[in-house]
Amino acid sequence: MATFGDIGVAAGINILFAVAFLVAFAILRLQPINDRVYFPKWYLKGLRSSPTHTGSFVSKFVNLDWRSYVRFLNWVPDALRMPEPELIDHAGLDSAVYLRIYLLGLKIFVPVALLSWAILVPVNWTNNTLEKSLATDKVQYSDIDKLSISNVPYGSLRFWTHIVMAYAFTFWTCYTLRKEYATVATMRLHFLASERRRPDQFTVLVRNVPPDPDESVSELVEHFFLVNHPEHYLTHQVVINANKLAKLVKEKKSKQNWLDYYQIKYLRNQSQRPVTKTGFLGLWGETVDAIDYQTAEIERLSKEIAEERERMKTDPKCIMPAAFVSFRSRWGAAVCAQTQQSRNPTLWLTEWASEPRDVYWDNLAIPYVSLSIRRLVIAVAFFFLTFFFMIPVTIVQSLANIEGIEKRAPFLKPIIEIPFIKSVIQGFLPGIALKIFLIVLPTILMMLAKFEGFLSISSLERRAATRYYIFNFVNVFLVSVIAGTAFQQLDSFLHQSANEIPKTIGVAIPMKATFFITYVMVDGWAGVAGEILRLKPLIFFHLKNFFLVKTEKDREEAMDPGSIGFNTGEPQIQLYFLLGLVYAVVTPVFIPFILVFFALAYVVFRHQIINVYNQEYESAAAFWPDVHGRIISALVFSQLILMGLMSTKGAAQSTPFLIALPVLTIWFHTFCKGRYESAFVKYPLQEAMMKDTLERAREPNLNLKSYLQYAYIHPVFKNEDEDEDDDDINAKLEESVLVPTKRHSKRNTPLPSKVSGACSPSLSDAVTENSKS
Amino acid sequence: MATFGDIGVAAGINILFAVAFLVAFAILRLQPINDRVYFPKWYLKGLRSSPTHTGSFVSKFVNLDWRSYVRFLNWVPDALRMPEPELIDHAGLDSAVYLRIYLLGLKIFVPVALLSWAILVPVNWTNNTLEKSLATDKVQYSDIDKLSISNVPYGSLRFWTHIVMAYAFTFWTCYTLRKEYATVATMRLHFLASERRRPDQFTVLVRNVPPDPDESVSELVEHFFLVNHPEHYLTHQVVINANKLAKLVKEKKSKQNWLDYYQIKYLRNQSQRPVTKTGFLGLWGETVDAIDYQTAEIERLSKEIAEERERMKTDPKCIMPAAFVSFRSRWGAAVCAQTQQSRNPTLWLTEWASEPRDVYWDNLAIPYVSLSIRRLVIAVAFFFLTFFFMIPVTIVQSLANIEGIEKRAPFLKPIIEIPFIKSVIQGFLPGIALKIFLIVLPTILMMLAKFEGFLSISSLERRAATRYYIFNFVNVFLVSVIAGTAFQQLDSFLHQSANEIPKTIGVAIPMKATFFITYVMVDGWAGVAGEILRLKPLIFFHLKNFFLVKTEKDREEAMDPGSIGFNTGEPQIQLYFLLGLVYAVVTPVFIPFILVFFALAYVVFRHQIINVYNQEYESAAAFWPDVHGRIISALVFSQLILMGLMSTKGAAQSTPFLIALPVLTIWFHTFCKGRYESAFVKYPLQEAMMKDTLERAREPNLNLKSYLQYAYIHPVFKNEDEDEDDDDINAKLEESVLVPTKRHSKRNTPLPSKVSGACSPSLSDAVTENSKS
Repeated sequence: MATFGDIGVAAGINILFAVAFLVAFAILRLQPINDRVYFPKWYLKGLRSSPTHTGSFVSKFVNLDWRSYVRFLNWVPDALRMPEPELIDHAGLDSAVYLRIYLLGLKIFVPVALLSWAILVPVNWTNNTLEKSLATDKVQYSDIDKLSISNVPYGSLRFWTHIVMAYAFTFWTCYTLRKEYATVATMRLHFLASERRRPDQFTVLVRNVPPDPDESVSELVEHFFLVNHPEHYLTHQVVINANKLAKLVKEKKSKQNWLDYYQIKYLRNQSQRPVTKTGFLGLWGETVDAIDYQTAEIERLSKEIAEERERMKTDPKCIMPAAFVSFRSRWGAAVCAQTQQSRNPTLWLTEWASEPRDVYWDNLAIPYVSLSIRRLVIAVAFFFLTFFFMIPVTIVQSLANIEGIEKRAPFLKPIIEIPFIKSVIQGFLPGIALKIFLIVLPTILMMLAKFEGFLSISSLERRAATRYYIFNFVNVFLVSVIAGTAFQQLDSFLHQSANEIPKTIGVAIPMKATFFITYVMVDGWAGVAGEILRLKPLIFFHLKNFFLVKTEKDREEAMDPGSIGFNTGEPQIQLYFLLGLVYAVVTPVFIPFILVFFALAYVVFRHQIINVYNQEYESAAAFWPDVHGRIISALVFSQLILMGLMSTKGAAQSTPFLIALPVLTIWFHTFCKGRYESAFVKYPLQEAMMKDTLERAREPNLNLKSYLQYAYIHPVFKNEDEDEDDDDINAKLEESVLVPTKRHSKRNTPLPSKVSGACSPSLSDAVTENSKS
Repeated sequence: MATFGDIGVAAGINILFAVAFLVAFAILRLQPINDRVYFPKWYLKGLRSSPTHTGSFVSKFVNLDWRSYVRFLNWVPDALRMPEPELIDHAGLDSAVYLRIYLLGLKIFVPVALLSWAILVPVNWTNNTLEKSLATDKVQYSDIDKLSISNVPYGSLRFWTHIVMAYAFTFWTCYTLRKEYATVATMRLHFLASERRRPDQFTVLVRNVPPDPDESVSELVEHFFLVNHPEHYLTHQVVINANKLAKLVKEKKSKQNWLDYYQIKYLRNQSQRPVTKTGFLGLWGETVDAIDYQTAEIERLSKEIAEERERMKTDPKCIMPAAFVSFRSRWGAAVCAQTQQSRNPTLWLTEWASEPRDVYWDNLAIPYVSLSIRRLVIAVAFFFLTFFFMIPVTIVQSLANIEGIEKRAPFLKPIIEIPFIKSVIQGFLPGIALKIFLIVLPTILMMLAKFEGFLSISSLERRAATRYYIFNFVNVFLVSVIAGTAFQQLDSFLHQSANEIPKTIGVAIPMKATFFITYVMVDGWAGVAGEILRLKPLIFFHLKNFFLVKTEKDREEAMDPGSIGFNTGEPQIQLYFLLGLVYAVVTPVFIPFILVFFALAYVVFRHQIINVYNQEYESAAAFWPDVHGRIISALVFSQLILMGLMSTKGAAQSTPFLIALPVLTIWFHTFCKGRYESAFVKYPLQEAMMKDTLERAREPNLNLKSYLQYAYIHPVFKNEDEDEDDDDINAKLEESVLVPTKRHSKRNTPLPSKVSGACSPSLSDAVTENSKS
């Protein structure tokens, strides 16, 4: 029961934190030494080079120009200045559309805030229900509650205002959603249409090629498509199981890193050869000379890699029953991707090939039956994860107490017994198991999605995002609203009647407003401000820089630009949509806090997308139907809750008016789904034909076959230029146009337009500053 | 609480009824005068001609050969003798697969019956719970209950038998379902592959052609497909709105019938010219000479029809934004039907054209937005229909009492006041409103489906069947199990917790066993036996024959072969599946009654399909996914109910074991859906290509264009040979190969194979009898 004062204090603290983060960022980003941490995107695009090459020694590391500190907040207008088309060009459509989610939040909630403050707040305020109940029942209430629906007396006619407002908000949300869906669909189609030629436009992934005793997979694929798509089939690439090779290459890479580390260490201090232990993590085992040991290891791995390569050339077991089939025209590919090929609908499954860098290679060979069993296993596993995750966490917590530690590790006893340390551990330990679990959760969810057998990184992230949202909804939202673990709630919901559940939640909602306001400030305001500081990449970059970096290429690899992280970021935004929609009618005071979050996050993420993040793939905003669907489900949920709340407020006669809302909203959803969704899953033939015709007119002599021949090759074969051996696969690769993978980071995103290269504000800003110093 | 004796009496009565129907049928079918009622299918196929042309005068009408009466039941082996491939050939795949639903019932429930009688009945019988409770609480129980789960004591370990049986039955049902799904899918694909050339194989229906100020719809369609399917597009037919013309033609046809009637009447009794009244139904208005009046009316209508034809040739408003587009190859059509054409996914919608006689012409021009609004309206309307239909019925009932009638029609008072008539009316009236509603219900559901905008009669019937099943489930099954109207139940379910609902139903289930046994006997046994008697068509045929028939063609039209009536028949079968699955574990005594129904219905409908029904369309078993899905939902429902029942029986610890059942069943459903469903909605390119190649090799000079040019023409244009005027459309039609519609009944089903023509048992049987007499 917080008063305005309490909220004000909390807000003050969080604003202080946020401002501290922003100031720290403003100062750190101006230091040349941090340039690669705060502007990696420009380095990756080759538009910026290390400022350490110019100026005096000190100014290589510290910015001494006081003028640049005065304008420490000018990254904000810089971030906002880049127009959207240029942003798409610079960072890809995914990023640009991701930002639109925040904008959508503003578009929905600014009018909602105005309307609710203009109408609902006066309506709520001019009652004295709470004062009366304080007088009679000694019920505690806060100032916030005076502005909320709680202050309207039982059975009052004023509730009609809230019902009308619920209609207005629903209408406005749906209107905005529809407009946004249409805009994003148009943007996607425009993006696909204006794109350069890309291999995935011509290519279809074929899975579950049936085994044949007489023909190899490659022959089979060729014959099948020559027969069934005679005028369109061009070429194909069989998928090779290179997981073992990839593992070896990765291991070699890591050993190479250690070798570099020891060599630098030895260079700095030549008096002593560095040593290491051969056991796990270098912690135990025989002590050996580190440089010799790592060199030997690398040699061994190189040999193994060569052997594995040899084996893959001859062993038919490495060839998986899947292939990337390319067609002469986009039309042919569009046709093949959208149709059923074989009588047996579980054989010769075709679908659009995702971008080469988006392909998740490990899952390409899972057969149909296994897939559907995996889906069941994962659905059950996720159910238990959501509702029973507290059980292992509680067990770990009960083990990880002081007594347990003293029992298991008696040698620690003297340290633990120091009163200060003891109290820290006692305060800290119980929470740590939960914290670790929550930090690891997105990784667990990604693992679940990987096991389920999705074929592209983008779809993995989308599925993980859906699950994360459900987890948040149950374990953050519901658990906060009603006390008790998720499982206890599931149990109580099972024992409650269908019309009792919305009441239970609805009654609790207004009482939890202050809690969620604090949550928004901590997680939303301070959290987002912390994001811009990039503390972890900052520390890691400097560590790597000190220990590993020898060449400019190493330094480039030491940068960790990161990416948006759709699988964690989007569910977080959705939680704010949910809170906003639920509280819009109930506690209008809540909305401004949400608005601040959306505005701040928009600016911060726009800055990050322009200067920092480097998207791993481009799915052309394929995630929008998910975003739309989740906002709709939040809207329906808020309507049901309102219905429950109203019926406890003596306004049960409003139920028929309110029940129309979810029905209409769900109908609106199916309408939008039918109207727009296919823009995100299908590729219209008209479009394909248009692009084909244009291309044929422009480049009549294009050799498409050589363009496509090696487009879909496992990334491990593409990184061979890093190795010494130049076998024939590699030689072939060199001939053809390569589709870049993550390692070739400079080629990772489309080249920026000339405009963006010239006038990119934060770049020019930083460059000016540097040249001045 | 019926004893075995009660059940025996009820069974006796119903068996008596059934036998009476069967005997009546056996006698009536042998009379030559009824030949067209009981063997219309053979007449329609042209394989049988009226027996009235041969023999003496009396033997034209009555079969005097006593030997044929001795063998009065030999239609049963006759019906069973025709092998399935021949049946498909004779009556189409729809009918053959429809029969497989009954067979599936036998396949599922015969082993279930054996297992439950072998294991569950002894387990239930060897308890004395009911005897004890009779002794202590004076609870009434019946012999049936002694065999049911009610007789197992509270918390007994014997419930594990029931759980194991639930697993066994689920496993067996799923296994059978999967096998059946696979078989039907294969049959469908084989049927489609072995079919003769049909226009719908080459044709795609295009809807929502966008309006264009410069081009007509026809030009627009041609240009679009010439651009986007350049190598495959062949021709197209624009859809013309001929609803008004069809209405006029129908009206003329009816007047013609009346004219015939009056002419025959006048011929028989030349002393008096027949008169009629001009008003509604000939009940009031000016009295005129009937023959003159009808002749004048027909003349007027002929003129109007000619005018309407003229108007349609010139008025662009008659052209709807839809067209049937035909392609050069099946491959081209398959591609176009399965892909998205335009950027805007609500324009240029393509889908497989259904068979010409399956097309529901009225709905072809509904735009996308209207469609989605209609869907919402119908969903809401159906909800109210299901849960609130009792309200208007009750209102009508309250109006239609004796006092009400006396008030409104005082002149009837003397008649009504006769005690006998009064008691009849009082006993009869309250029920009549409900009866009429239930008879009209399938028609209402068809109207709902039509309003919803489905494009083919088969899909209309499928949708109506789904709704009828839901209606039956709520208003027959649930309302019988738990007292109260559907709405009261909805209300009580809303106020009950999720785990309480299965308990409520589960507890009531064993108590209702005797009620449902009676229901099965009345509705299933006697009802099915009544079906074979065809009382209504029998009467109508003889009436028409007497009043209207002048020529042989008239007589053919007077036959009403009817059709399977998927929209009412299939939901009825599904109710039996539901009852069987629900009672399999709970009251094993129930299963044999179900088995008798399935066996009897199989024989009867096999006979009807061979000799009577004339399918209006052929959808190649497109309904199977619906059938499968409904059995699965019945299975899941029965599992939930069992869980509820168990938890009230002190076997709550079994819940974890039972909850796995619905999860696995639903997973099994998604597995089957993914594995087989696409065989029912898509057309694999491999198949299309194979048929194309074959055809090209066999008939290299085939003129496909002329074959397809007039395939999809509104049936009203095809019946013009019945009219006098022979305008140009008609002339063109004559040139081309016509796709027959219902009127040309002889051409309605594929010609029978020579085998079936020669050895069809019931036909040869009947012919022999006739020739002997």
